[in-house]
Amino acid sequence: MGWMNDETGLDRTPANHVALTPLSHLQRAAIVFADRTALVYQDLRLSYAQYHNRVSSLADGLRKKGITPGDVVATILPNIPAQVEAHFAVPAMGGVLNTINIRLDTDTVTYILEHGEAVALLVDTQFLPLAEAAIANMTGEKPRVIEVPDAGAGFPATGRYETYDDLLAAGDPNAPWTMPEDEWESISLNYTSGTTGRPKGVVAHHRGAYLMTMGTVVSWRLQLYPKYLTIVPLFHCNGWNHTWMMPVLGGTVVCCRDITPAAIYDAIADEGVAYFGGAPIVLNMIVNAKDEDRRDFDHTVEVFTAGAPPAPATLAAIESLGFNITQVYGLTETYGHVTECVWDDTRWGELNGADRANIKARQGVAFPMMEDIAVLDGDMQPVNRDGATQGEIMIRGNSVMKGYLKNPEATAEAFAGGYFHSGDLANQHDDGYIQIADRAKDIIISGGENISSVEVEGALMNHPAISLCAVVAKPDDKWGEVPCAFVELKEGETATESEVITFVRERLAGFKTPKRVIFQELPKTSTGKIQKFELRGVAKDL
Amino acid sequence: MGWMNDETGLDRTPANHVALTPLSHLQRAAIVFADRTALVYQDLRLSYAQYHNRVSSLADGLRKKGITPGDVVATILPNIPAQVEAHFAVPAMGGVLNTINIRLDTDTVTYILEHGEAVALLVDTQFLPLAEAAIANMTGEKPRVIEVPDAGAGFPATGRYETYDDLLAAGDPNAPWTMPEDEWESISLNYTSGTTGRPKGVVAHHRGAYLMTMGTVVSWRLQLYPKYLTIVPLFHCNGWNHTWMMPVLGGTVVCCRDITPAAIYDAIADEGVAYFGGAPIVLNMIVNAKDEDRRDFDHTVEVFTAGAPPAPATLAAIESLGFNITQVYGLTETYGHVTECVWDDTRWGELNGADRANIKARQGVAFPMMEDIAVLDGDMQPVNRDGATQGEIMIRGNSVMKGYLKNPEATAEAFAGGYFHSGDLANQHDDGYIQIADRAKDIIISGGENISSVEVEGALMNHPAISLCAVVAKPDDKWGEVPCAFVELKEGETATESEVITFVRERLAGFKTPKRVIFQELPKTSTGKIQKFELRGVAKDL
Repeated sequence: MGWMNDETGLDRTPANHVALTPLSHLQRAAIVFADRTALVYQDLRLSYAQYHNRVSSLADGLRKKGITPGDVVATILPNIPAQVEAHFAVPAMGGVLNTINIRLDTDTVTYILEHGEAVALLVDTQFLPLAEAAIANMTGEKPRVIEVPDAGAGFPATGRYETYDDLLAAGDPNAPWTMPEDEWESISLNYTSGTTGRPKGVVAHHRGAYLMTMGTVVSWRLQLYPKYLTIVPLFHCNGWNHTWMMPVLGGTVVCCRDITPAAIYDAIADEGVAYFGGAPIVLNMIVNAKDEDRRDFDHTVEVFTAGAPPAPATLAAIESLGFNITQVYGLTETYGHVTECVWDDTRWGELNGADRANIKARQGVAFPMMEDIAVLDGDMQPVNRDGATQGEIMIRGNSVMKGYLKNPEATAEAFAGGYFHSGDLANQHDDGYIQIADRAKDIIISGGENISSVEVEGALMNHPAISLCAVVAKPDDKWGEVPCAFVELKEGETATESEVITFVRERLAGFKTPKRVIFQELPKTSTGKIQKFELRGVAKDL
Repeated sequence: MGWMNDETGLDRTPANHVALTPLSHLQRAAIVFADRTALVYQDLRLSYAQYHNRVSSLADGLRKKGITPGDVVATILPNIPAQVEAHFAVPAMGGVLNTINIRLDTDTVTYILEHGEAVALLVDTQFLPLAEAAIANMTGEKPRVIEVPDAGAGFPATGRYETYDDLLAAGDPNAPWTMPEDEWESISLNYTSGTTGRPKGVVAHHRGAYLMTMGTVVSWRLQLYPKYLTIVPLFHCNGWNHTWMMPVLGGTVVCCRDITPAAIYDAIADEGVAYFGGAPIVLNMIVNAKDEDRRDFDHTVEVFTAGAPPAPATLAAIESLGFNITQVYGLTETYGHVTECVWDDTRWGELNGADRANIKARQGVAFPMMEDIAVLDGDMQPVNRDGATQGEIMIRGNSVMKGYLKNPEATAEAFAGGYFHSGDLANQHDDGYIQIADRAKDIIISGGENISSVEVEGALMNHPAISLCAVVAKPDDKWGEVPCAFVELKEGETATESEVITFVRERLAGFKTPKRVIFQELPKTSTGKIQKFELRGVAKDL
């Protein structure tokens, strides 16, 4: 340990030790980048000085409602300025921000409000019915509702609640912030969207959010003054902490309420947006955009994608349109992305097509702020780096949650052995790059052979008529399981089951070829992930 | 404070809390950037895997010599690979690195070795006479000497000591590192080069060094894989922490033992170097390079300069050669640079010549990892932001030293009121940018008027024959003080006193014009700063 013989007088003091928090970024930006554009939405264009003042007003407005440090303030908001501002304002009055997914069912929202004990709830007018129904079902203390109208999007104020603007007007734009004294204080509460059981409340600390922003600057190769589009919902791991990061770079956050190809292309062409994160479904949306929605631009757009590897066909198509895709991986428990497929031009600069996609399909290596991300076997030993042996992704570092709210047993289980257990199965290549072969349940075992549903999906995505697909196991008397494909076609395209089967058979081994192909819209979770468990239910009954 | 009502089970654990240290960067780089070039010197080209192995060997070799955590390991080394490797290896065995300035006098080196209690000393063969003389004068325990020969530079091993290569050979290249358990542990000890009294031992913590590297990525607009040249000596604030930063970006450190125009141009042209830091004297060296030393290159070289504002003429000349200059400011007590003149193209994009130089003459605003850098008056209140009122630069943030070794009184004094007192006087512009008008002693008071020696020096630097200059006060019976200029001419150039005075008179008010101009080589400190106190002595007797 690096303690010297005599360290008299060398302790922490206010001059040399300040709690790490992303709040510092906006405090600094209000000085350094005062006149630069911080936030854009519809006709609103805020400079950093204005943004900082609005955040100060909001923090002070909440304070004046009797909300005190440690209180939870919840939101049911799409990616509009109020959501962005709440990310700074709630912690700036010592509160803990609980962003609730706007796509959840009433029952789950009731559960979250009761479990999280929110004292206030900022609700977009469009989602008032959801909030009102959820609150009506509550048995405990009900949160104070603050309505956030968005007239420009067709949602004017109902007149039934105090509004966001009332709150801003009540607050002092020069009110000082309540900065954390300890960087382990809580900054946010995010409920996981589990497919079974009640969601768990993931509590994040200021330190982790700060370090997440600094590590992301490195990984995303960000420089001063980036233009960023909010596609990842801010209620999803706080938008991977991107809006907390932007002030450190003097960047501009362009808000996107409704994710459409036209909105994305317009932001790129009109605002110069060059960075956003999004699920592969967003990449498909861009690739399959109608001609009238496309816009010309002459810069490269850097896209972080997560949730599933981009299919080779999608990757080839979108990269030729001027987008560079980097796959990242993470969970709500890790503030969002903690691994990235770092691109090494000296090794892969010449690769194209499927070879390039094969590399980009990897979840990659640890972000700079993470200490150790490993693939471990059941004895917590590293698996062979052979690109085949499976183990569980285990995560250790400063961008890992404090734990689950009011659930010390689940927290202890998640952190057993000194790592956060991701629950995701992966292998590790000889260069250390991690690759998720399949989430555990996504392996199809047919005649004793393991089939990767990801591989079969990759083959299907090469079909020119297919927009989106999912492959699951269908029980089979002879083989145990066989692959069954569910497919969404592109608008105006047609295909038949036998034609698709033949198409895949030309590319994959016979046992990997789907035995059935079902054409239907795929069920998705509130965060856009395909709900394979539902499809497994359908496949079972076919 | 952001503590929730119920935080049961939400404490720090090994999974979610790891001590911040730049050591983590190299640990990660050994995996992520294994095959990329990490270090270049003469014929040596190390990949990150090799670099990591050599660092592990060195750490283990030191361990095997009986050196234990908390021990101080000193170096008297120019910017060669051993110095770069020691920056990781000494902390990697829990030691504290004490880099000693190679230009110091024997007496001061004796003092440092006794005060710092170094148990080992790595010495470049060229500087063995200095080390031997300094050790001979010691009364306390003497350090073990390890000789670092550099045959390629004309300094083969003397055969009198164990060598660096012996130490590497004795260590295990796969030995695990001793990582800090607490980020407040000490990583380095740097003695200030005070002009009066004994130097003070500045103790740095792992946390500060880590955050310094992350903040510098943002400020220097660094992206993956930069090529960096070591011009700032690593014994000067650990080279502003740049070699600790490079692994987080997979960058290449190109070592430069002797700073010459040819060496700099060759590194830019042959290795693609695009980043270095250096004093304005280095900028002058580049501007005044002989034609045969110049090389063509087609990228922009980003230069951090500190110590004094670049003169407008120097700035104009060097920027037209393909270098972009950013002034930064800091002290040994702040790990190097903590303010930067962030360039805002929306405000200054159209500026040229003197207008551009006037902006770039500012020390600017806080680096991202710093909390608050202010100009305060004697009552610790902010001065008016009028670009004129002077106060002292006060610094608060995570890249501030732990304090002075075995000197709690000086530490307490330096941190009085919750800020580190820089001792530098400055004003603050209305946009928050800080500008050092003059170090306190650099103000010349003539007939009751304050004269900025920096301003007069700026005017002198426009003279085509002048290479370097310094202006100090000369006592005067009538005016109290008058400006007196000391000037170095460019090779082969000539000028007369009256001609130089006339030149300045055309540009500045009469009372600001030097009354005497002396042509001589300027005395410089071991870190390259001009020693004005010596010149004041000369001026007094003129």
